[in-house]
Amino acid sequence: MLQDSHLYQEIHQQPATLKTMLAAEADNAAQLAAAIRDKGIDNVVIAARGTSDNAGRYAQYLLGAVNQLPVALTTPSLFSIYERPPRFGPKTLVLGISQSGKSPDIVSVLAEARRQGVLTAALTNVPDSDLAQQADHVIALHAGEERSIAATKTYTTQLAGVALLATQLAEDAAMLAQLQAIPNKIEETLALNGHVAAVAERFCYAQNCVVIGRGFNYATAHEMALKLKELTYTVAEPYSSADFLHGPLALIEHNFPAFVVAPSGVLSGEMGNFLKQLHEREAEVIVISDDVALQQAAHRSLFLPTGIEEWLSPITAIVPGQLFAMHLAATRHYDPDHPRGLRKVTQTR
Amino acid sequence: MLQDSHLYQEIHQQPATLKTMLAAEADNAAQLAAAIRDKGIDNVVIAARGTSDNAGRYAQYLLGAVNQLPVALTTPSLFSIYERPPRFGPKTLVLGISQSGKSPDIVSVLAEARRQGVLTAALTNVPDSDLAQQADHVIALHAGEERSIAATKTYTTQLAGVALLATQLAEDAAMLAQLQAIPNKIEETLALNGHVAAVAERFCYAQNCVVIGRGFNYATAHEMALKLKELTYTVAEPYSSADFLHGPLALIEHNFPAFVVAPSGVLSGEMGNFLKQLHEREAEVIVISDDVALQQAAHRSLFLPTGIEEWLSPITAIVPGQLFAMHLAATRHYDPDHPRGLRKVTQTR
Repeated sequence: MLQDSHLYQEIHQQPATLKTMLAAEADNAAQLAAAIRDKGIDNVVIAARGTSDNAGRYAQYLLGAVNQLPVALTTPSLFSIYERPPRFGPKTLVLGISQSGKSPDIVSVLAEARRQGVLTAALTNVPDSDLAQQADHVIALHAGEERSIAATKTYTTQLAGVALLATQLAEDAAMLAQLQAIPNKIEETLALNGHVAAVAERFCYAQNCVVIGRGFNYATAHEMALKLKELTYTVAEPYSSADFLHGPLALIEHNFPAFVVAPSGVLSGEMGNFLKQLHEREAEVIVISDDVALQQAAHRSLFLPTGIEEWLSPITAIVPGQLFAMHLAATRHYDPDHPRGLRKVTQTR
Repeated sequence: MLQDSHLYQEIHQQPATLKTMLAAEADNAAQLAAAIRDKGIDNVVIAARGTSDNAGRYAQYLLGAVNQLPVALTTPSLFSIYERPPRFGPKTLVLGISQSGKSPDIVSVLAEARRQGVLTAALTNVPDSDLAQQADHVIALHAGEERSIAATKTYTTQLAGVALLATQLAEDAAMLAQLQAIPNKIEETLALNGHVAAVAERFCYAQNCVVIGRGFNYATAHEMALKLKELTYTVAEPYSSADFLHGPLALIEHNFPAFVVAPSGVLSGEMGNFLKQLHEREAEVIVISDDVALQQAAHRSLFLPTGIEEWLSPITAIVPGQLFAMHLAATRHYDPDHPRGLRKVTQTR
């Protein structure tokens, strides 16, 4: 039974894990925020891979928009393979994000940052991991062991960890209250399970698709595409709607599936225009949105609950993507817990 | 005739345009390098989209490895859509890369950087463009008008512009001499045209593929994948070999085409191991390399000339990718100059 899989259970544990993490790590996030203020940190460098890199993409937008911090996603091979690490400015925070805290290339970035004497932090599910040991500050995920190979609950807790840091740094009680309401919104989103299962069946034989998001939800597009690749072996390409128009739009032909992650917010108008362009090219358009106008402009919709601030929407918007990838795997008779060729901890250097 | 297409001609103009650019812009690059030294610049932020973003990826590795500068690829929507730009540190260089210099979102990043009073520079084919007008320093591409929609000669001149800057910043005459030898190496690579045409035919009905590169040639993987999408409508996914192992490896099944960009260098051993993993999964492996051992470990090879330093290899390694995408388009009876749905200047905000 699909309900007995680790993947199904871990997707459904997300409201509880988020609540636990937000309560347990508020102090650690506040301490890291205080260190950022004390040291006058003026830029952040993030080291991460795979799902954790998508949490890094969210941080790039969120710490930029809320805290006005420029955020770079770094290139681990400069540290690990080339052994030619860049020299960080003295006001740099280097943040490693990793579920296991074990990938040697990510650990090497933090070790070098520490050697250079800049502030380091880790966001990890394993607070005594190699990565955490190189970090001045650790924010733990409290997600419990993740037994499915495809990461789900550790991704949303990573996003919530980033959001908690942004909130503490902004010292904004209203934002914190909005963040604390998110676990219940995920619960609402999980009620979609049956609807998503029905929609997924239509795509049983789809070999390719694109997943489009922009701004805060650029991360969601990347993460949904990764779940589709890992769990269903669909060649799913993530794009920002802006980058997509600079070339890859040429891919779209009659009935080509285009998933568009478009929670309501300042991008809604932009996304409405983008849907028109997809229709002109006769794409099959599936939106993930709470915006009724966008839902009506699509062939299929994966609905999001209303009343979620755009800056927090990536934490809920990935949930229909997780459910969709799980049900598409199931309808294709794939094992949801053991994608071919993958292991839980990937050791890259 | 394919030879009469703008695309064919522009690919073959590359040795000449590179020579022109390197001669004409040495002084401008030296002046920008002097400004970087004078101001004690300790980090670089790049704004770019599409092909130009791939030149930015090269800059991220090259300015890191050679000049020890941390380089961030920024998120234009924070500037243009959200109107919440990050606050740059005073020692930041903001570099815009754009063939046309016209895309409003890229221009908005430089305008904001100028408003904040940090150093700005533009790398563009149009030295009086909107982008150039926001820049303290301009490095021009001298590529002449690019009439094919798919960018080729402006990409390699952008890479050479980045390499010229790194060289001037390092004040390294030996590196400059290596760079100046590259146009002739491109000439050698172009001699592959007939071989590439023959290999391309095999993939006439391939719908999907991945293109893998790492380090300096992560940019090449992205750019080759973009050419395949634009010109041949193949769903081509670019990956770093390390990121690929963190999930997308699951995609690979019997006969799935995997292009591996692997010029000789410090990554050769790593890439050899990676090829073994692809063979275990029964991928169809095509290498782009000058390394005989890697060529022998592949089903098909697109050969690179020997004697090119790894840091310069992206400028030549993309050429077989350009030729391959052109010939694959031709063998599929597509118009190489006018991909469906695209225009030369993409105005995104």
